[in-house]
Amino acid sequence: MDTDEKLATVHLSVDCTVLGFDGSRLEVLLIRRTGVEGGQEFHDMKLPGSLIVDGEELDDAARRVLTELTGLKNIPLVQFHAFGSLDRTKDPKDIHWLERAHRMHVHRAVTIAYMALVKIGRNLIGEMEGTEALWVPVNALPPLAFDHNRIIGEAVKMLRTMASMDPSLLYALLPRKFTVTQLRNLYEVVFGVRLDPANFYKKMVQMPYIVPLDEREKGVAHRAARYYRFDKNNYNKTRI
Amino acid sequence: MDTDEKLATVHLSVDCTVLGFDGSRLEVLLIRRTGVEGGQEFHDMKLPGSLIVDGEELDDAARRVLTELTGLKNIPLVQFHAFGSLDRTKDPKDIHWLERAHRMHVHRAVTIAYMALVKIGRNLIGEMEGTEALWVPVNALPPLAFDHNRIIGEAVKMLRTMASMDPSLLYALLPRKFTVTQLRNLYEVVFGVRLDPANFYKKMVQMPYIVPLDEREKGVAHRAARYYRFDKNNYNKTRI
Repeated sequence: MDTDEKLATVHLSVDCTVLGFDGSRLEVLLIRRTGVEGGQEFHDMKLPGSLIVDGEELDDAARRVLTELTGLKNIPLVQFHAFGSLDRTKDPKDIHWLERAHRMHVHRAVTIAYMALVKIGRNLIGEMEGTEALWVPVNALPPLAFDHNRIIGEAVKMLRTMASMDPSLLYALLPRKFTVTQLRNLYEVVFGVRLDPANFYKKMVQMPYIVPLDEREKGVAHRAARYYRFDKNNYNKTRI
Repeated sequence: MDTDEKLATVHLSVDCTVLGFDGSRLEVLLIRRTGVEGGQEFHDMKLPGSLIVDGEELDDAARRVLTELTGLKNIPLVQFHAFGSLDRTKDPKDIHWLERAHRMHVHRAVTIAYMALVKIGRNLIGEMEGTEALWVPVNALPPLAFDHNRIIGEAVKMLRTMASMDPSLLYALLPRKFTVTQLRNLYEVVFGVRLDPANFYKKMVQMPYIVPLDEREKGVAHRAARYYRFDKNNYNKTRI
């Protein structure tokens, strides 16, 4: 390498892509952002994330930021990709927002993206004043800050790859008791397929790890469906 | 977050973990390093890697560095993990070496690790004067620069996870024509298991994607084994 070329000095951030499932749609946890660009206030959304501070480990930063901005604690966050493309900060309003927030000049920002799968329904109250976290359907995202649309797209691809290898991951997204319809909807949205309800039902109830409960849906207009739970021990017995 | 805390400014590097298989052992491609510490010259080894320069994309940097240091071109490099732990530069000789090489102060260095699977036997001639690349068995590594022992360990774990999902990846590590013994050795070293030769042979020759060739080993002391090749089309037909 030509050592006369200037080495890149970067600010490093972490961004958390927390995915949930509302029974029919895959959703991602976002926070609202307010900025000022060209003298005008603007409002949009972004992933919970932040620049890391001096002396902070990457994994610690991801946990800190998620708790500060969404109130979520003890979520298993897995690092999945570094996004460092130069065009991720091509919109000047993103850099200006970053510089106002941190009161310093930001040259190049590379982010380490983390992913987590959670059950929707946890309490979402950030520790920082004025932050608000909300679930937004992955297939109906508006343009987000930086390259966050791309990061979410890559996270969903990663979920698909991982779930095809280890389908038990999907149960982290379902409530503890779920209907076969919810399970089928989840398979459909994760793998982007349509599944025949009768065939899916037949196959699933034969699985020793899908355990029927003595409990049915309440207060529904249609015929109340039975609840099932996922049995991790039985699942592990089906694997080599 | 307390904005009075100092944001981390980091130098970003890329490191390439190129794995190969010599017929019986998993090997990794390393380059020699010469440094000076405490007035004494020292020699050790490291992954092919380098700090990225201003305006350089991460993937481009990984390709550039691999070609410059090993001569390898057109290798499919996949980003697999960011290593940013503070203790990855705890040995002062690593920071001093970096600062001498780049003639600048280096504060914190985070590296984006890439992985590639190649067939051993390519020509390894780096473009930079004085660089020498060599294959070293993964299970007999000396202490390497920075956290490179850890990076290689994580790369091997990733290979194991990916190959358990998609065994066709393993054929990138084998010569175009290979014996069943070579294939079994590869399974054994990747998955860390012992396999019964007779059972493995019986199972493998039944696979429609392991195609026998009209060719046998030459110049071997033992009974010359038949060569096989991997048929990607037949393999894809066995998958859903």
